[in-house]
Amino acid sequence: MYRLAGALALALVFPLTALADPLPSWNDTASETAIVDFVTKVTDPASPDFVPEEERIAVFDNDGTLWSEKPLYFQGLYALDKLREKAKADPSILTDDVLRAANAGDMKGVMAGGEKGLVEILNVSHSDISVEDFQASARDWITGAKHPTTGLTYAEMTYQPMVELLSYLRDNGFRTYIVSGGGVDFMRSVSKKAYGIPTWQVIGSQGKTAYEVRDGVPTLWKEGGIFFLDDKAGKPVGIISDIGQRPIFTAGNSDGDFQMLEWTTAGEGPRFGLIVHHTDAKREFAYDRDSDVGRLAEALDQAPAHGWVVVDMAKDWSRIWTGAK
Amino acid sequence: MYRLAGALALALVFPLTALADPLPSWNDTASETAIVDFVTKVTDPASPDFVPEEERIAVFDNDGTLWSEKPLYFQGLYALDKLREKAKADPSILTDDVLRAANAGDMKGVMAGGEKGLVEILNVSHSDISVEDFQASARDWITGAKHPTTGLTYAEMTYQPMVELLSYLRDNGFRTYIVSGGGVDFMRSVSKKAYGIPTWQVIGSQGKTAYEVRDGVPTLWKEGGIFFLDDKAGKPVGIISDIGQRPIFTAGNSDGDFQMLEWTTAGEGPRFGLIVHHTDAKREFAYDRDSDVGRLAEALDQAPAHGWVVVDMAKDWSRIWTGAK
Repeated sequence: MYRLAGALALALVFPLTALADPLPSWNDTASETAIVDFVTKVTDPASPDFVPEEERIAVFDNDGTLWSEKPLYFQGLYALDKLREKAKADPSILTDDVLRAANAGDMKGVMAGGEKGLVEILNVSHSDISVEDFQASARDWITGAKHPTTGLTYAEMTYQPMVELLSYLRDNGFRTYIVSGGGVDFMRSVSKKAYGIPTWQVIGSQGKTAYEVRDGVPTLWKEGGIFFLDDKAGKPVGIISDIGQRPIFTAGNSDGDFQMLEWTTAGEGPRFGLIVHHTDAKREFAYDRDSDVGRLAEALDQAPAHGWVVVDMAKDWSRIWTGAK
Repeated sequence: MYRLAGALALALVFPLTALADPLPSWNDTASETAIVDFVTKVTDPASPDFVPEEERIAVFDNDGTLWSEKPLYFQGLYALDKLREKAKADPSILTDDVLRAANAGDMKGVMAGGEKGLVEILNVSHSDISVEDFQASARDWITGAKHPTTGLTYAEMTYQPMVELLSYLRDNGFRTYIVSGGGVDFMRSVSKKAYGIPTWQVIGSQGKTAYEVRDGVPTLWKEGGIFFLDDKAGKPVGIISDIGQRPIFTAGNSDGDFQMLEWTTAGEGPRFGLIVHHTDAKREFAYDRDSDVGRLAEALDQAPAHGWVVVDMAKDWSRIWTGAK
């Protein structure tokens, strides 16, 4: 009886959240310990490393960091689907080899067009539509279409351990942002539901957008073409333009995140840099320096010198996707 | 005794903030009533016009809406001061007539250079400096330098009624943003202290910014040149790029705010558009359709048709500046 009362008293003093493991899908390895130690010290007012809430900003890459990116960035797969839909209605849009290859599902032909070809596919598939209609279309696809090899929806292929990490940081007074090379409008369509991140905390590449009154209706229109590329050195630029402050925590998975990692962790005071290393061929995909998508070489090589924590997916995560136990 | 107890009970039930006038520097006119009616209905869960907190986004122009803008946008005055400082150290930067006129304080000569000349002055005064150093410089100037005619610091020339309005909206679950034609880095240097608005809720024009490692230090560098102009049709574009949602409340004072007013108030459900009309030559400045700075004509003419509330500074405000009673 005394013991029960004691347990009850304890439960009243320490809310359940403080007792439960905040990162249940992380194995008990050095990566989890490093995260918890960092969050503990920056949130403890008695610690010399205490950081006020206003400065607790955490930025996350999306493709390969918060959800999968194989066989291709999901937005690329969306673009191919939309291109095929458009070509079905109007084959005359297939004006060159790259677009015809994309329509035929000939990925070698697409890749032969290089970056210019990919931008062309994005242009055809992402333009001539209002921002609102585009977001609705992206949301439907991400939550409805099935991934070619896993059979999961794309929304189900977010990483459970990273979703837990986002929540854990927010529970500790952090503001969590996505900072991705992917398009803002694409990610915003699901950011709140998938990650608990509101649209205004999503930073990404931007297509050209125009404001026009069409048939009496004020409309924001995706015109095609790229206005801002939020990748590599563009990531720190995107962060300072949008947030106006340097983050103290960042997570990425490729060399496209190198400058974001470098800038974030070069600041004074406590800093945390995390790299998701795709080591799990059995449960997900294994790749790094030889991959076309999400190439990780320089950031991996320089991680020890910078003190970046390299997460070994196979060893550090007990579960991969939110949509599959 | 009974009455006293009753008053005490009332004070316990209604917190002090609910009893106090939330807009003490607004006279009891139709403008104040319209604001309070709007906020009351969108925050009342029983109202058909209730708006969930996530959608309570309010956007404010800055120059002429939250602080004064005469004789010139304050950032323009800052640019002239910095140009003179730089020219003192190195007169060779004065490479043409516009820069020489600016250095000599010859405003007619500056205006003769048109918009191109003004951009040139901004380029010379706002470039070759890190974002952090620029913000420190802007902060020092805004809080230290004195306005040419009022003798107040620029920070003291924010409008007390608008600062109260920002607080009132935030107290009612709104997120308040600045959306200005002025430069983001300039405004962010004081936005929190002046308006209670954090850096990440300031949207504005953007200069070109580059990320470089200089002498081993990762740095964000203002390069000169304009990357994004957040004015006129650029305002809705800036809002959708940064926030990803349409606001429900907006305030401006010039035709540069027309599209922001138009887009915001064209949305479904309850919407509020406010125009600050500079009618008070005695306490501030009186101007509208014939002014070079903050020209207000089209938005004023179309205000009745759109239902925008036009604030008459002379009649609606009992106090103008935060720094002067």
